[in-house]
Amino acid sequence: MEKLETNVKINDQFWKRYMDVVRNEVIPYQWEALNDRVPDAEPSHAIENFRIAAGESDGEFYGMVFQDSDVAKWLEAVAYLLETNRDPELERIADEVIELLGRAQQSDGYLNTYYTVKEPGKRWTNLRDNHELYCAGHLIEAAVAYFKATGKRRFLDIMCKYADYIDTVFGKGEHQIPGYDGHQEIELALLKLYEVTGNEKYLKLSQYFIDERGKQPHYFDTEKKARGETQPFWFNNDYRYHQAHVPIREQKQAVGHAVRALYMYTAMADLAAKTGDESLKEVCQTLWENVTKRQMYITGGVGSSVFGESFTFDFDLPNDTVYAETCASIALVFWARRMLELEMDGKYADVMERALYNGTISGMDLDGKKFFYVNPLEVWPKACERHDKRHVKPVRQKWFSCACCPPNLARLIASIGHYIYSQKPNTLFVHLYVGSEIHTEIDGRMVEVSQTTNYPWDGAVQLTISPESDCEFTLGLRVPGWCRRVELKINGEKVDMVPLVEKGYAYIKRIWRKGDQVELFFPMPIERIKAHPQVRANVGKVALQRGPIVYCLEEIDNGSNLPNIFLPRDVELQAYFDPELLGGVVVITGSAERVDESAWDGELYKPVEAPTYAVTFKAIPYYAWCNRESGEMIVWMNEK
Amino acid sequence: MEKLETNVKINDQFWKRYMDVVRNEVIPYQWEALNDRVPDAEPSHAIENFRIAAGESDGEFYGMVFQDSDVAKWLEAVAYLLETNRDPELERIADEVIELLGRAQQSDGYLNTYYTVKEPGKRWTNLRDNHELYCAGHLIEAAVAYFKATGKRRFLDIMCKYADYIDTVFGKGEHQIPGYDGHQEIELALLKLYEVTGNEKYLKLSQYFIDERGKQPHYFDTEKKARGETQPFWFNNDYRYHQAHVPIREQKQAVGHAVRALYMYTAMADLAAKTGDESLKEVCQTLWENVTKRQMYITGGVGSSVFGESFTFDFDLPNDTVYAETCASIALVFWARRMLELEMDGKYADVMERALYNGTISGMDLDGKKFFYVNPLEVWPKACERHDKRHVKPVRQKWFSCACCPPNLARLIASIGHYIYSQKPNTLFVHLYVGSEIHTEIDGRMVEVSQTTNYPWDGAVQLTISPESDCEFTLGLRVPGWCRRVELKINGEKVDMVPLVEKGYAYIKRIWRKGDQVELFFPMPIERIKAHPQVRANVGKVALQRGPIVYCLEEIDNGSNLPNIFLPRDVELQAYFDPELLGGVVVITGSAERVDESAWDGELYKPVEAPTYAVTFKAIPYYAWCNRESGEMIVWMNEK
Ligand SMILES: [Zn+2]
Ligand SMILES: [Zn+2]
Repeated sequence: MEKLETNVKINDQFWKRYMDVVRNEVIPYQWEALNDRVPDAEPSHAIENFRIAAGESDGEFYGMVFQDSDVAKWLEAVAYLLETNRDPELERIADEVIELLGRAQQSDGYLNTYYTVKEPGKRWTNLRDNHELYCAGHLIEAAVAYFKATGKRRFLDIMCKYADYIDTVFGKGEHQIPGYDGHQEIELALLKLYEVTGNEKYLKLSQYFIDERGKQPHYFDTEKKARGETQPFWFNNDYRYHQAHVPIREQKQAVGHAVRALYMYTAMADLAAKTGDESLKEVCQTLWENVTKRQMYITGGVGSSVFGESFTFDFDLPNDTVYAETCASIALVFWARRMLELEMDGKYADVMERALYNGTISGMDLDGKKFFYVNPLEVWPKACERHDKRHVKPVRQKWFSCACCPPNLARLIASIGHYIYSQKPNTLFVHLYVGSEIHTEIDGRMVEVSQTTNYPWDGAVQLTISPESDCEFTLGLRVPGWCRRVELKINGEKVDMVPLVEKGYAYIKRIWRKGDQVELFFPMPIERIKAHPQVRANVGKVALQRGPIVYCLEEIDNGSNLPNIFLPRDVELQAYFDPELLGGVVVITGSAERVDESAWDGELYKPVEAPTYAVTFKAIPYYAWCNRESGEMIVWMNEK
Repeated sequence: MEKLETNVKINDQFWKRYMDVVRNEVIPYQWEALNDRVPDAEPSHAIENFRIAAGESDGEFYGMVFQDSDVAKWLEAVAYLLETNRDPELERIADEVIELLGRAQQSDGYLNTYYTVKEPGKRWTNLRDNHELYCAGHLIEAAVAYFKATGKRRFLDIMCKYADYIDTVFGKGEHQIPGYDGHQEIELALLKLYEVTGNEKYLKLSQYFIDERGKQPHYFDTEKKARGETQPFWFNNDYRYHQAHVPIREQKQAVGHAVRALYMYTAMADLAAKTGDESLKEVCQTLWENVTKRQMYITGGVGSSVFGESFTFDFDLPNDTVYAETCASIALVFWARRMLELEMDGKYADVMERALYNGTISGMDLDGKKFFYVNPLEVWPKACERHDKRHVKPVRQKWFSCACCPPNLARLIASIGHYIYSQKPNTLFVHLYVGSEIHTEIDGRMVEVSQTTNYPWDGAVQLTISPESDCEFTLGLRVPGWCRRVELKINGEKVDMVPLVEKGYAYIKRIWRKGDQVELFFPMPIERIKAHPQVRANVGKVALQRGPIVYCLEEIDNGSNLPNIFLPRDVELQAYFDPELLGGVVVITGSAERVDESAWDGELYKPVEAPTYAVTFKAIPYYAWCNRESGEMIVWMNEK
């Protein structure tokens, strides 16, 4: 499967635009940022830290303890861009950075600028807080991507050397550290390294980290004692923060820091798929059900609390004091992708699609210049001054001193091609409907599939199947969960799709001939979505969704005090494509009732009916909100 | 007017019970607490601090910097109890405490255990944070109350000596401190001291504190610099916290710490009434409109944010992340009472009544054993574990390490007689309908008025007017703002009240004869109250009120997930008195629709109508919530 990822070309209207923004705006800007050349911004110092570690520059380490990971995520995004479009100048810059990493690497393989420069001799003394293995993981991911994109081994060799060293350090052996990371990441990275090298050592090390986590005596206690630290851990003295409160196989509910959790679940799913570990698979499924049926926003956002950027408890999904970090939605995409490998079920692709078209890309403006860390579902800008909502920014910010989300989004968008297709013996799956071409080998023969669609605005999809010669195989076509009725034509002839569908995929087995045409049509009526009655925040409210796109109301279109707009139950809604708006989006309009504020005198409380008047409201895709001017926004409308 | 307060006897069903609870439970318990004799509770040390300051005990100061005020509030409450019922044993204990205070007083009059014991020589160096003048104010209030209740001068003399000393310390003179208090309180206390002593010095000093506040150069900056302090003030570096950001006469909006604000407004209103200062009166009116028409919960709670226990901004009234400190509602009662002196308008009495019957007494359980500091309007106990709602306790707490609310509530309840009547030349006003007797002098003749009512459960009130001889004067009877239609009978004959009413009071001028009967009937239909459309938290919701009582739904009566109960617009509601419930309350019931959770499968989001079924709901008075078992509670119900 991995090989085929490198053979996907994107020509989709929707995603190509985002990839161009990443290529032309985000990546160049981030490079300037990493090199401290952005005026009026706090310096990143990330490249300079590597120079200092390499002995090529004087000065002190500066930045977060995980500053190295910014360079890693940048390199990974660059690799994905090169994968689809070789760019000699960009590649030259990346090669230079990689050489710098090589020079900063210690002779034993260790590669971390914080400890090398700032606390030499203290390596691995604070796994709980200090992100060494996390940074290693991001560098490994970048190295794997770069090798697959360019075929160059240099970065991969550097990281194998580091991974080999880490493998000697951690484990249950006599002189080994029986610990694991405070921020999960290396687990999923080692599995990628295993995939590309075939070296089982990396799989075993990933497995060790996963299996060891949360066992007693607790390693975080052991190392804390060794550090002579006495104060309780800040997260209510609870290792739920790192999902290390109990062993992984005993975890039934998503808890703690959402990104940590989801990176770990991603690794678990991948490991279970690679090893056939049934008990681990079950844990993944249990946690999946908990996250997606109890703790996920309709946008694919996760993490309901700023405290610990964390999951809270079932059905606690406030729209305004939300966290829903961009990175958490990205991690949800990673996890969903791995769950599909573990079990082919459309429910995983549904969540992947939900997060991709809503809660991830909402993190960036349409120009790739500003970013949300937190993705709220309801904003009253004035209320963002409240102490308990200060984490919710009413407008996207230029960059962050903790710059985790922007480069993470860059690498996701640049690698969108990895999420569209996958392959099992004799079956090619289509998970996402994205204008693209794939060249892959099925049963020994090269097959080209090209996909044309105007998704997500229109549910018509045309697939052209072109094997090098006639070839029997199965096409597994996802039927989106939001789709109530689907039409299928093969070479112009209607085919009843219903009997072909199993767990969200239609399986079409036949001898495919060069140029065979598969036409799909997923009608996209406007849907009025209700939340589970236990979600107290959304009682009496409705959200609008069309296809995979979740909608919102903005003040610029609808005036202020958006909660005062009531959507009658029986009103008809219209959708139309506006090519001029927000880069071209489908807009939803309809009539609604609005409380007449002018009819209300000065009293705060009165025993009256609030008179309403008819208005036409306008909803836009959630991901595109806050691209015009600052103002109120709501996803969940009141219903009447 | 003050003299007549001491002549009010309470025989009201509702308030007598509360006074007995204060007398028999709160005051004895608090005395044990002040003396560190409550098992399993953090010691108060408040009495011990005075012993140490008096040189009669060894040891260190312990407690908050304002620990002395706990003793003061206890003494003040005791004074009010003695006012209505002399109790030699209680009076003996109080006298002993007063003697102790006398011995702790320094030779120059200074009396503060924190500075005397812990930081001698540092007096008045941190007015912004350290509550010296605040504690002085509470002690003065207690001394005035004790003098008026018992006629004993000892405590009053102690506090006059302290006030005289303070008067030498503060001011614009050459060797004086041009500062003022960080927690307003002494301003209102000095006005009480002026009232009872007639010494204008105290009025002038109060006026000085009020006029000086917020002027530039800012005294808090000056003293901060003198302390060598460099860090910004924790409340966003903003003296709005103490309402000292601009001079008082420039303040148009209630900001900052709610109790500080309302104690100050109380003093301002009193000062304006005593001096006839029209510009100060206008400021009071402007702030009153802002608080009561923009920033007040329907319960009379104020303060929308835990950060700084503060006001936030207009219409920001979240029900669940609310603050609404018990003390702030108490302070609102103080302020309303003073506003009535400034301008006889029923709107002030309406707010006073709203706070008295709802947001103040909700702070205590029916037994006087447990207390709320924060009075939420919506509680989902599980959500109180969220970091941003940890200040909202789902159950009342035993006592607090910062024990401001319980003794404050004790002194309010013990002095309820002060809020019922007031007097202007030849006019006797009735503000509250509370079973009571008043003996007062009108136009040189003694008049006795006795009031019989079953208020707040029933709007029938009977007044018997008994002058010692026939006597012409005006009776000013408040017509509650919630009352749409009122019936009046004098000596059994119907009188049209409408033409008699001006600004919420019906003025009945006649020659009163011994035994004249005035019968009032205020019908109490159940009212469905809507909030101003700008209150986003209450859009689409309705609260139930009957008479002055605001209702709520509790989980114990209605099951869990209360937001899922929808009240149809046209449904009829019933009210009945249940003598067995919660000490005897009127209950409201009716039929409503409830979302059928069992009809919902596991999905979080679905394009469906949520089916509902009919239920009978039961609402109880808000003040009495959480007296049976812990669970959910809502004031604002969803409407259908
Ligand atoms: Zn992030
Ligand atoms: Zn308090």
